[in-house]
Amino acid sequence: MIIVTRSQVTDTEHQQVVELLQQLAGGQRPISAITMQGRRVITIDGNSLDAQTHAALSQHRAVERIVSTNMPYQLVSRAFQSEDSRVVVGDLPGSRSVTIGGAAPVIIAGPCAVESREQLLEIARAVKDAGAQVLRGGAFKPRTSPYQFQGLGIEGLQFLAEAREETGLPVITEVMEPDMVEVVSQYADILQIGSRNMQNFPLLQAVGNSAARRPVMLKRGLAATIDEWLLAAEYIVAAGNPNVILCERGIRSFDSHTRNLLDLTCVPLLHELTHLPVIVDPSHATGRRELVPTMSRAAIAAGAHGLILETHTDPDRALCDGRQSITPAQLQITVRETRLVAQIMSDSAVLSFVA
Amino acid sequence: MIIVTRSQVTDTEHQQVVELLQQLAGGQRPISAITMQGRRVITIDGNSLDAQTHAALSQHRAVERIVSTNMPYQLVSRAFQSEDSRVVVGDLPGSRSVTIGGAAPVIIAGPCAVESREQLLEIARAVKDAGAQVLRGGAFKPRTSPYQFQGLGIEGLQFLAEAREETGLPVITEVMEPDMVEVVSQYADILQIGSRNMQNFPLLQAVGNSAARRPVMLKRGLAATIDEWLLAAEYIVAAGNPNVILCERGIRSFDSHTRNLLDLTCVPLLHELTHLPVIVDPSHATGRRELVPTMSRAAIAAGAHGLILETHTDPDRALCDGRQSITPAQLQITVRETRLVAQIMSDSAVLSFVA
Amino acid sequence: MIIVTRSQVTDTEHQQVVELLQQLAGGQRPISAITMQGRRVITIDGNSLDAQTHAALSQHRAVERIVSTNMPYQLVSRAFQSEDSRVVVGDLPGSRSVTIGGAAPVIIAGPCAVESREQLLEIARAVKDAGAQVLRGGAFKPRTSPYQFQGLGIEGLQFLAEAREETGLPVITEVMEPDMVEVVSQYADILQIGSRNMQNFPLLQAVGNSAARRPVMLKRGLAATIDEWLLAAEYIVAAGNPNVILCERGIRSFDSHTRNLLDLTCVPLLHELTHLPVIVDPSHATGRRELVPTMSRAAIAAGAHGLILETHTDPDRALCDGRQSITPAQLQITVRETRLVAQIMSDSAVLSFVA
Amino acid sequence: MIIVTRSQVTDTEHQQVVELLQQLAGGQRPISAITMQGRRVITIDGNSLDAQTHAALSQHRAVERIVSTNMPYQLVSRAFQSEDSRVVVGDLPGSRSVTIGGAAPVIIAGPCAVESREQLLEIARAVKDAGAQVLRGGAFKPRTSPYQFQGLGIEGLQFLAEAREETGLPVITEVMEPDMVEVVSQYADILQIGSRNMQNFPLLQAVGNSAARRPVMLKRGLAATIDEWLLAAEYIVAAGNPNVILCERGIRSFDSHTRNLLDLTCVPLLHELTHLPVIVDPSHATGRRELVPTMSRAAIAAGAHGLILETHTDPDRALCDGRQSITPAQLQITVRETRLVAQIMSDSAVLSFVA
Repeated sequence: MIIVTRSQVTDTEHQQVVELLQQLAGGQRPISAITMQGRRVITIDGNSLDAQTHAALSQHRAVERIVSTNMPYQLVSRAFQSEDSRVVVGDLPGSRSVTIGGAAPVIIAGPCAVESREQLLEIARAVKDAGAQVLRGGAFKPRTSPYQFQGLGIEGLQFLAEAREETGLPVITEVMEPDMVEVVSQYADILQIGSRNMQNFPLLQAVGNSAARRPVMLKRGLAATIDEWLLAAEYIVAAGNPNVILCERGIRSFDSHTRNLLDLTCVPLLHELTHLPVIVDPSHATGRRELVPTMSRAAIAAGAHGLILETHTDPDRALCDGRQSITPAQLQITVRETRLVAQIMSDSAVLSFVA
Repeated sequence: MIIVTRSQVTDTEHQQVVELLQQLAGGQRPISAITMQGRRVITIDGNSLDAQTHAALSQHRAVERIVSTNMPYQLVSRAFQSEDSRVVVGDLPGSRSVTIGGAAPVIIAGPCAVESREQLLEIARAVKDAGAQVLRGGAFKPRTSPYQFQGLGIEGLQFLAEAREETGLPVITEVMEPDMVEVVSQYADILQIGSRNMQNFPLLQAVGNSAARRPVMLKRGLAATIDEWLLAAEYIVAAGNPNVILCERGIRSFDSHTRNLLDLTCVPLLHELTHLPVIVDPSHATGRRELVPTMSRAAIAAGAHGLILETHTDPDRALCDGRQSITPAQLQITVRETRLVAQIMSDSAVLSFVA
Repeated sequence: MIIVTRSQVTDTEHQQVVELLQQLAGGQRPISAITMQGRRVITIDGNSLDAQTHAALSQHRAVERIVSTNMPYQLVSRAFQSEDSRVVVGDLPGSRSVTIGGAAPVIIAGPCAVESREQLLEIARAVKDAGAQVLRGGAFKPRTSPYQFQGLGIEGLQFLAEAREETGLPVITEVMEPDMVEVVSQYADILQIGSRNMQNFPLLQAVGNSAARRPVMLKRGLAATIDEWLLAAEYIVAAGNPNVILCERGIRSFDSHTRNLLDLTCVPLLHELTHLPVIVDPSHATGRRELVPTMSRAAIAAGAHGLILETHTDPDRALCDGRQSITPAQLQITVRETRLVAQIMSDSAVLSFVA
Repeated sequence: MIIVTRSQVTDTEHQQVVELLQQLAGGQRPISAITMQGRRVITIDGNSLDAQTHAALSQHRAVERIVSTNMPYQLVSRAFQSEDSRVVVGDLPGSRSVTIGGAAPVIIAGPCAVESREQLLEIARAVKDAGAQVLRGGAFKPRTSPYQFQGLGIEGLQFLAEAREETGLPVITEVMEPDMVEVVSQYADILQIGSRNMQNFPLLQAVGNSAARRPVMLKRGLAATIDEWLLAAEYIVAAGNPNVILCERGIRSFDSHTRNLLDLTCVPLLHELTHLPVIVDPSHATGRRELVPTMSRAAIAAGAHGLILETHTDPDRALCDGRQSITPAQLQITVRETRLVAQIMSDSAVLSFVA
């Protein structure tokens, strides 16, 4: 069950609700208590409350509503929160603050993998100059084969921190196992959950209830339905972390011209179903550098809040995914074009659909 | 084999090549002889020529090159013709001429099915006022169930012709069997081949070698690869009709929120592989009216040469596909927004990708 | 609407019902009148009857029930006819009669394409010796590319007729367009509708209402749902031909080790949903000769009523699909093994599932 | 790189090779050293060795061959080991030993989730009586929604251990995170890696290099290609655990009649590509109890080494997956039928395919 307080409750009132809950519902402790749009949102185990507890809670002046968790997803749904969520990233020292979820599209760029200190710093400067606002780079790499380059690990994280200090760009990097969440959170402004881990539930819970509570970018699984994806996001939010960003990165299909099949229709569909921001990864979706700038434009036209673009100063020698990495020059063009498209959409009085 | 003449050959030279061919290659008659970019393109049976015939043809002053058909597709490939094809539609009396394949996106709109004379004329006027340049409407309807409304047939074609006469809009309608090609060509400016018929080879040949040689809009099959689709187009062109327009309309996938899965990445990919124009049908792709305007914008941003949009003045009472039909008011907004996006792309010096 | 008479009505009674129908329902003529399980089944246009007509028909002693066509499919459903349909093939002179749909699996074998008289006769003898009961061979071939071998046409049909005369095996061959149905019916005991034509509705209607009324083998479309497939079968039956055999031949998927993805689960599922016989084509499904015998065994274990197996005496030189053609020796083994599996299933008292 | 010794090397010789390797290859330590078919298989980092090291190792009398890891998968491939692997399960006290990978199919049965001590013991007795050889039951459950029953955890493991002690059946249960591998290994004879974790690489490494080295059943991912699946298995083996069993459980597709799409063709295909045993899960594949017995027969006919079948004494009240659970009575029939099919295949002299 989910108990939602009125907006602007005091800490004392919040504490009263928690205590009332524990007292009435047999000592049950909240799974999480987060703040969404100025309200406290308390999630507890179970899909129902006994009538007496329900009545007592409902009558408390601090409680606005009690929501059953029988529905497939709740906390992430547009029905639960009608306003768009805006996720502010850049918690760590030296980082500029960037908001994901507003009208201006956010461009995340950088190499597939952190390969060396020099490579990363060179690319970080280049993507900043090209207009990117967040730096990406993999330190722990999920690779299909055990014999492929698996990333630099902790050393890669340190290089990312150094790049942030120099450029001011917040950094995003992947975390692959629950035990590493706290460590990666010391270095990363945003934690990435990769496609292969979209339904790694212990990992979702770990990024949800970690002490650092870093924003999480949750990539869509290779063959995940929209509902499964939103339920995976619900795991994170229900565990205590409302700062979730969805990332469409292409799904599996039958044509071999592209690596995956980019589902841009999910962008307006998600805007209907959820308040969470949505960004698009045309690099993994297409797997081919030539298609990335065009599909970036199309993603923004579809309403994406941002893009994540593999960028490398020497793509043909990249240790991974060079085929789909653009150059900083191509990134600069893409940034310019997507801003123009976003500008039109922002100017247009008609953007909100006339139903 | 395909024999391509130099540009601007005379009819006499063309005739000489055909006769030389017949004489040398054992009386073989051309399957087709079409004109592409000012050159005569003669297609004959077989993947090879004997050495003597090849030599004699190569040496004829009117012959530019001889192309083997061992490759999967030839005539439709970008390698065969580097310039974009522009398909001019509007052959029939009363029709304005519209070019599909240039910088300005072409909007095709109208009802799923022609339901009555009044319905069609009302919608035709409304979509013209909203800015559409071509009128769509089904007279023969391929329906999943034998018990669904199958269209008005010839009477529907007559209403389409009347709507053209009144509005000046060229009309597009589906043809479902080889025998009907000539009849439908008397009424329609563009013949539509539906998804279910993408590999109906006798039908492809019939629209290819029909006397009327109307432009053909070839919709992608429900699970067709890009190569299969281009080979289907090759059937039409090789049979004698170079005026083919490709139409992406969504492919089958696993999520039930939308009717099909729109593959917008195929647009820039097709621009690499073929010189044929590409338009997008977001109505069938999404199956949901609310998503159509947004995906229209995204399609144009992806480089589509136009859109085909199911439009109805009373969508909720439409005899078919009402769920995905927009109103004329929504069409007008969509026309305006897509023009703005196309304008940016046209203004932008960077549009041609910097490889 | 569908009007079903009681079993064993006389021709006079049947005629009375038709006349009553025409008189009451505004001169409406039946689309078709077929016999199923001893009952006359009259299909007419429209999903409803006015109350008076419904009442008058219901009260006629020859009428058993009146069925609405609002449901997705009717005539082919298990609800409409609970007993398994058995389709008897072998109408043409020289042909032995074979029943598809009973306990003994029927093996159909032969080359992808009829390549020459000698090739076909040699293979026909070989597959007969190996235990096959029906001969397959394509005379008109649907080919992905216009430059591939398109079949021998009428000449191929003549060779098939000659092979039947010599071996007594009924023959099956593909028909690709409505105009050819009567011609092909002169030579073929079974008409095949290929995957690409599963929703070629004029063709379905043509094989449904042809004068010859040959049994039809309807292959599943490349990405057809079970319901779409059954509705395609309903088109044929509603048009007047109840002799439909379904054929699963693999659907499109993402793995490149095999040509298609064989869906064997559809076999028991179809047995629940429809009374029509189901056969399996492991040749096209797998695309690889090595996998054919094993998947043949599995298909019979899943309850298939038969198999269609591409077989060639020299697979590596076949003009099409050699990679997936087995040899007569492999066919013989497959026939033997599938009979053993069918025997177990037939002996087993438990075969009908204990729900 | 992978260094393979001759069969039957002594520990001293093995140690010499390891030391030579460390000395020559810059102190490099083996990732793992396992025994396969009597040979020591030493895996080290990197895809190549310098020429001198390669030469020195090649000349050592204990070394049979040195294999590059440039190929997609090595240790699990049929090329690396031509004989079928047989995985012996039942390490824990009270457990009978069962071999998976031989001619006799192994039946694994039990509830989706361990719900209570009584439920589990009752089902365990019933599935043993019905002929099952291994007991399944989930203690930690990966659930799509955070609000669904998540399993009993450690208590569930204890009930499984008690059921093993009473019945002698080895037990299999899922492990979801690296940290839990040792704990679950104290209770489970086989560790299950679920579909959603097929590419959870830290988990694959954890079950590969755990001290207990329990056999692992690796379920195919929802949209995993065969190659990705084998590479996931390679992760486990390369990390030190050769006891891997593959489990096909259906892949995602577009038809809604069944939960997933069972890919039985992967069974003979895997037998070509890998020496690992393959079992089939028709419960999750079909999602419907009525289809399970038939598809079990088909799976065995396709060459599966066993089946895993959700079984419940009161399926309609099961806390999860009741719709797809069979009863012990249905299990008994399935065991009998699959044995008959396996018997035929074993008797048949022709089973090994005549290429």
